[in-house]
Amino acid sequence: MTNNTQVRLARRPHGLPTDDVWEITTEPAPEPAEGEFVLRTEYVSLDPAMRGWMNEGRSYIPPVGIGEVMRAGVVGQVVASRNEQFPEGAHVVATTGAQEYALSDGKGVQVVSADAAPLSTYLGTLGMTGLTAYFGMLDVGQVKAGETVVVSGAAGATGSVAGQIAKIKGCRVIGIAGGEDKCRTVVEELGFDACLDYKSGDLKAGLRREAPDRINVYFDNVGGEVLNTVLPGMAMRGRVVLCGAISQYNADGGLTGPSNYMSLLVNRARMEGFVVFDYADRYGEALQEMAGWLADGSLQSRETVVEGGIRAFPQTLLRLFRGENVGKLVLKV
Amino acid sequence: MTNNTQVRLARRPHGLPTDDVWEITTEPAPEPAEGEFVLRTEYVSLDPAMRGWMNEGRSYIPPVGIGEVMRAGVVGQVVASRNEQFPEGAHVVATTGAQEYALSDGKGVQVVSADAAPLSTYLGTLGMTGLTAYFGMLDVGQVKAGETVVVSGAAGATGSVAGQIAKIKGCRVIGIAGGEDKCRTVVEELGFDACLDYKSGDLKAGLRREAPDRINVYFDNVGGEVLNTVLPGMAMRGRVVLCGAISQYNADGGLTGPSNYMSLLVNRARMEGFVVFDYADRYGEALQEMAGWLADGSLQSRETVVEGGIRAFPQTLLRLFRGENVGKLVLKV
Repeated sequence: MTNNTQVRLARRPHGLPTDDVWEITTEPAPEPAEGEFVLRTEYVSLDPAMRGWMNEGRSYIPPVGIGEVMRAGVVGQVVASRNEQFPEGAHVVATTGAQEYALSDGKGVQVVSADAAPLSTYLGTLGMTGLTAYFGMLDVGQVKAGETVVVSGAAGATGSVAGQIAKIKGCRVIGIAGGEDKCRTVVEELGFDACLDYKSGDLKAGLRREAPDRINVYFDNVGGEVLNTVLPGMAMRGRVVLCGAISQYNADGGLTGPSNYMSLLVNRARMEGFVVFDYADRYGEALQEMAGWLADGSLQSRETVVEGGIRAFPQTLLRLFRGENVGKLVLKV
Repeated sequence: MTNNTQVRLARRPHGLPTDDVWEITTEPAPEPAEGEFVLRTEYVSLDPAMRGWMNEGRSYIPPVGIGEVMRAGVVGQVVASRNEQFPEGAHVVATTGAQEYALSDGKGVQVVSADAAPLSTYLGTLGMTGLTAYFGMLDVGQVKAGETVVVSGAAGATGSVAGQIAKIKGCRVIGIAGGEDKCRTVVEELGFDACLDYKSGDLKAGLRREAPDRINVYFDNVGGEVLNTVLPGMAMRGRVVLCGAISQYNADGGLTGPSNYMSLLVNRARMEGFVVFDYADRYGEALQEMAGWLADGSLQSRETVVEGGIRAFPQTLLRLFRGENVGKLVLKV
């Protein structure tokens, strides 16, 4: 009999999700009933949004319950099947959580091709983060050729793709990232026009220098002081795309509000939130276009793959909040 | 020879514009050259935005210079003219500032009818504040029949009109105002469905009670803690119309940012600023529609007229920031 090791939420974190908020459990791997299949998890997605799912209270999806397996997107392989749409051996993307094996009836599960792209890419550029970048930049941000675009979290899974999409659309793109190495990657490997290291140097002065004609679109993944510093530089009718606020998710006393928000009034600008799930009926067209960009080399996919098995999930999540990843952070099980 | 008493900005205020930031000067009233005319000021407009004009630095219009006559909208009567478009005796609306007499070449000046409406109305409901309410609610807010709308500063010049316009369009309208008397006026005289006194009682609980199906449009005149309290109650695809932030204009240490801004993401909502000047080419259609609403009684115009002459300008401006006015605050010269 095969064991299934699982990472469960034991209590709600205050601040960073330290080891004591998790419980590692082991139970027998499941068996499929008629219409079901079992997948063996190969890669687990690590996402900033996970921190929000761990909190109680209303959000865009219900919180993970205490005692439940932690919600996570995964790539897995079907190892036992009584559902002909998901035959044994097939690779699938699912949201079956931080565990080694999972039972599924196929709802919300997609079969993916191991030949078309490395499997982990389906959690990143050809997965939720890529889709988030795509709809955030094009649908909410409405970027147009010739505009100046700023992306924070530029080395991260979503930011790295969002900035490249703006480049493909003919924009001048300035990244913001933490650290010299990340900034170098963003410019030299991902093709951004510039990248500002918010940890060293004067971000405000850097933005003035790199965006002398002001900022048409700001794609914000980090919130906090970076958002506040960018706001006064918005151009007339500029768009701030609220994608995330990773700098704030572990703040115990509530978020810091952007005190420069009245720049939106002066500049007739808007700040708008979105949730990628709302675009589910357009995932297909987006993935097709992005696969084309990957194939012709105009889009680079970056991943940080951590080896270590499912028990490494809690520590790997902390790496995300320390900003140690370039591109999508995934855990290999 | 006639004297012209003027209120000039002597220094930039920190916090509230106290008496010492002003200088009262007297000079001979001007004489018109060819193409010019002289108006005698009858009413001076008092506006929250004036506080911003007194600060140094970039905004949607340049600041008032030190030593200059304070910028203000006025209604006046032409008393001497060498411009046939503005004959002696005509009443006009102009932005000639806080002074008893002004010289004009007619640029940006409109002739108005003393028979069609009380003259002071042209500074309020049929002036910039009415236009601000109109375009903010309809163009930025995009209100639709059946929606729930919240308006802060509901007893003020802009808020009182904004809420009534939403009522005309078939919305449920909840005002927020400071004090029991103002709230009573807002409901009983202006026809709002409810009004919450932010000074007494629990605003959050009040909003939950009065807007159980959440808030589709929030028209914000005050900013600060009120904005922050409203944000979590926004409905899916809600719109926050940034019209002003009167609670913050005299804050010496910079504005307070809305720490609940990520409600925009969760609710796929947007927060958008606007400046009424951008709609100049549509003023005519808006004023015509609002004059119709005034005539048929669906729109009530409220004014607080202070008698006292031009020297009372500094003290009257402070009344605005103390929230002592209902409707448009004007000074009779």
